[in-house]
Amino acid sequence: MNEQLAQSVRRLIEATIRTEVEDAILTAVQAKIDWATEQLSASLMPGSFGVQQMSDGQSRALGNVVIGDRNPVAPPLRINDDADGFVWTEFVLGAAYEGPAGHVHGGVCAMILDHVLGATAHLPGKPAYTGTLTLRYVRGTPLGQQLRAEAHVERTEGSKTFAVGHIADAEGVTVQAEGVFIHPKKAEH
Amino acid sequence: MNEQLAQSVRRLIEATIRTEVEDAILTAVQAKIDWATEQLSASLMPGSFGVQQMSDGQSRALGNVVIGDRNPVAPPLRINDDADGFVWTEFVLGAAYEGPAGHVHGGVCAMILDHVLGATAHLPGKPAYTGTLTLRYVRGTPLGQQLRAEAHVERTEGSKTFAVGHIADAEGVTVQAEGVFIHPKKAEH
Repeated sequence: MNEQLAQSVRRLIEATIRTEVEDAILTAVQAKIDWATEQLSASLMPGSFGVQQMSDGQSRALGNVVIGDRNPVAPPLRINDDADGFVWTEFVLGAAYEGPAGHVHGGVCAMILDHVLGATAHLPGKPAYTGTLTLRYVRGTPLGQQLRAEAHVERTEGSKTFAVGHIADAEGVTVQAEGVFIHPKKAEH
Repeated sequence: MNEQLAQSVRRLIEATIRTEVEDAILTAVQAKIDWATEQLSASLMPGSFGVQQMSDGQSRALGNVVIGDRNPVAPPLRINDDADGFVWTEFVLGAAYEGPAGHVHGGVCAMILDHVLGATAHLPGKPAYTGTLTLRYVRGTPLGQQLRAEAHVERTEGSKTFAVGHIADAEGVTVQAEGVFIHPKKAEH
């Protein structure tokens, strides 16, 4: 139910950016949006969603800005994770992720690669945090087209995982990345 | 008007993530959201917002995912740009930007630093594109607290600008960054 609402809000975000309707309609729409926010705010969890245990016993980061099904800002990415540390996801990004005209913001590419490379190091109940991340931009990444991000573990050293990956469109790689991800000694943050 | 609507949608996004109201209310709210999207979609510009010339003659990237006032996904950051290439911005990030529980997603920090470092190289009518970007995560960046991002030009070499910067909270630096930004020979993307 919350996930379906988030999906509706994603469509609203795209329409908000691209609409060319007259001010009278914008005013009427804004009043309905404010009403909706008021309804939802009748009961709010404090702070942010965090990581919560679901009824199936699994922990889920439904509010996560990259993968969270409850977060309308998240595309949301569906991360496919092979047992051997190979991670991939396919997705299309719309008007909400724009930087240069018609292209994905370089910072959004960085955000996605941070998450996808980090996912190579994630273990159930043992999250990994980014130590360093280096991005090399080969060319623009198009909006509105099928994209693929993938990453794999290059090597591990103690608590450190060295991962590499990229984003590609149908023509090939647009952004390359390498990163070091760390399993903290205790789960403190 | 469009900017005010986007601001209302930002509040809706936060409420969508944090709400704990019952399903009946979620259903009613979703119906209103879908109605709003339909109203806005009566007239949509094709593709994305891009960079458009405003009535004051200035070009604005109102759909930009980091600074765009029309884009509900953008915080939006207000970039302060001194003549000597020093750039800074202060902001607070809410539940929509979460990664680790209670903390800003490392990828969101990367996105912001890409934009802020890149802004040191931007000139009116002469955008700069990211060549490489390297991020070093010192510690977690908190949600819901005042943050500051700043960057300056370290040196330039022909069409390349070398910039450094960081994000900090009240306790000090959380993420450091350095990047190379490039003015393309012709504005092709």
